[in-house]
Amino acid sequence: MTKSIIPNSHPRAKSLYVREKLAHAFDEGLVAKEGLIAHGRGEAFDYLIGEKTSKAAKKAIKTAAFLLISAKNPVISVNGNIAGLCPKEIVELAKTSRAKIEINLFYVNQKRKQNIYKVLKKNGAKHVFGIEKKHLRKLPGLDSARRIVDKNGIYTADVVLVPLEDGDRTLALKKAGKKVITFDLNPLSRTAQTADVTIVDNVTRGIKELTNSCKIMKQKKPTKIKFNNKKNLDQSIIEIRNHLTRRANHA
Amino acid sequence: MTKSIIPNSHPRAKSLYVREKLAHAFDEGLVAKEGLIAHGRGEAFDYLIGEKTSKAAKKAIKTAAFLLISAKNPVISVNGNIAGLCPKEIVELAKTSRAKIEINLFYVNQKRKQNIYKVLKKNGAKHVFGIEKKHLRKLPGLDSARRIVDKNGIYTADVVLVPLEDGDRTLALKKAGKKVITFDLNPLSRTAQTADVTIVDNVTRGIKELTNSCKIMKQKKPTKIKFNNKKNLDQSIIEIRNHLTRRANHA
Repeated sequence: MTKSIIPNSHPRAKSLYVREKLAHAFDEGLVAKEGLIAHGRGEAFDYLIGEKTSKAAKKAIKTAAFLLISAKNPVISVNGNIAGLCPKEIVELAKTSRAKIEINLFYVNQKRKQNIYKVLKKNGAKHVFGIEKKHLRKLPGLDSARRIVDKNGIYTADVVLVPLEDGDRTLALKKAGKKVITFDLNPLSRTAQTADVTIVDNVTRGIKELTNSCKIMKQKKPTKIKFNNKKNLDQSIIEIRNHLTRRANHA
Repeated sequence: MTKSIIPNSHPRAKSLYVREKLAHAFDEGLVAKEGLIAHGRGEAFDYLIGEKTSKAAKKAIKTAAFLLISAKNPVISVNGNIAGLCPKEIVELAKTSRAKIEINLFYVNQKRKQNIYKVLKKNGAKHVFGIEKKHLRKLPGLDSARRIVDKNGIYTADVVLVPLEDGDRTLALKKAGKKVITFDLNPLSRTAQTADVTIVDNVTRGIKELTNSCKIMKQKKPTKIKFNNKKNLDQSIIEIRNHLTRRANHA
């Protein structure tokens, strides 16, 4: 990776480093052009929630950890942006939560799939699903290539973590009877509104907290947490709104 | 350019066309990868303001037109995204407001600068500043290549229009005594908060209105408009906040 040109003194250096990381992942053939634009949308919402993990997000993370730990067959769906931003962290979360890892792309591209596969293996993934053609099955309720899932992965999963997901796929997974956990910085998006547990947080921050929560919950018998996703999303929307109010008053 | 696959009936077709245009400009070597990400940020804020030119934006546009028309040496700073999205409109605005055009990139790259130069010339620009090395000077208060400006352009300008600009540069321009006008969809950004006149609008919508305002103002003696940028920004923030309140109540 070429040396960063972002000055450390820049007030938003962290966000710019993540942006550089994604741009680098694009060069490496992991991320689609559309993935870069989508990342920008996330940046805007992260900015609006104050670039920190909110109380609402922490509650969603605990609930997600409970679901993963209690699942029979949990699967983490990985796309280009996730592989570019936090491959190591995904592998660690998978190991901690006994979840399988499956590659599933919105803009399907075999070369990109192979690149993502290599990065996951390099970062310690034992097995990666969604690769072997003979194991691929069609998820009902979706058109085109996006419905293809692995029969030993998402197809038979009871809990699926789909970070940075598209609304149509989230809905199809729900209709197929899965419990869906997502990371989505836009609390208004269809994915956010459709999932069972929406973590309104930057995945590069939240994933470490999710892995930690899983570790803690494994040490004691996990108890179910009272959680209402719609109410939790409203809390995130209200947090953004309050952030805007404070900013408007300070201006 | 390949034919668009976006149906006209799509509720967000306009935004998707603009996105396609930028992706095309990326393929043509005008736009940086980081420019695609920045565009995504803009998309999110445009979505939150309802994808229309607000009353607050219209007032800012009128004030900006007054500043440009009354300036001694107005300059429009052009980056990759602007050249990709509205080269023709920039040239028209420059002609109407007697402003110079200067290429100034955040991610400096000579090849990209040349591509942008060609696009501006193709769209009718007479002279483009920021190209000839012997004319380049350093703007104080900025590190790295971003401080390089043209001695006959931004360096000696009294009014600078910097659409889609970085906060550091906006601040440096202010410190150098320039009146700064910007297009920025994020009313909270440092650029938005630092500039003298911030137009919180999608540049592809607002630039035509700005050119029209300049035309109208040239026909009569321009009178100064009462304008407070901070208050105007507050108005944009409140509009986003109200939009979120409506959404939270519906959830």
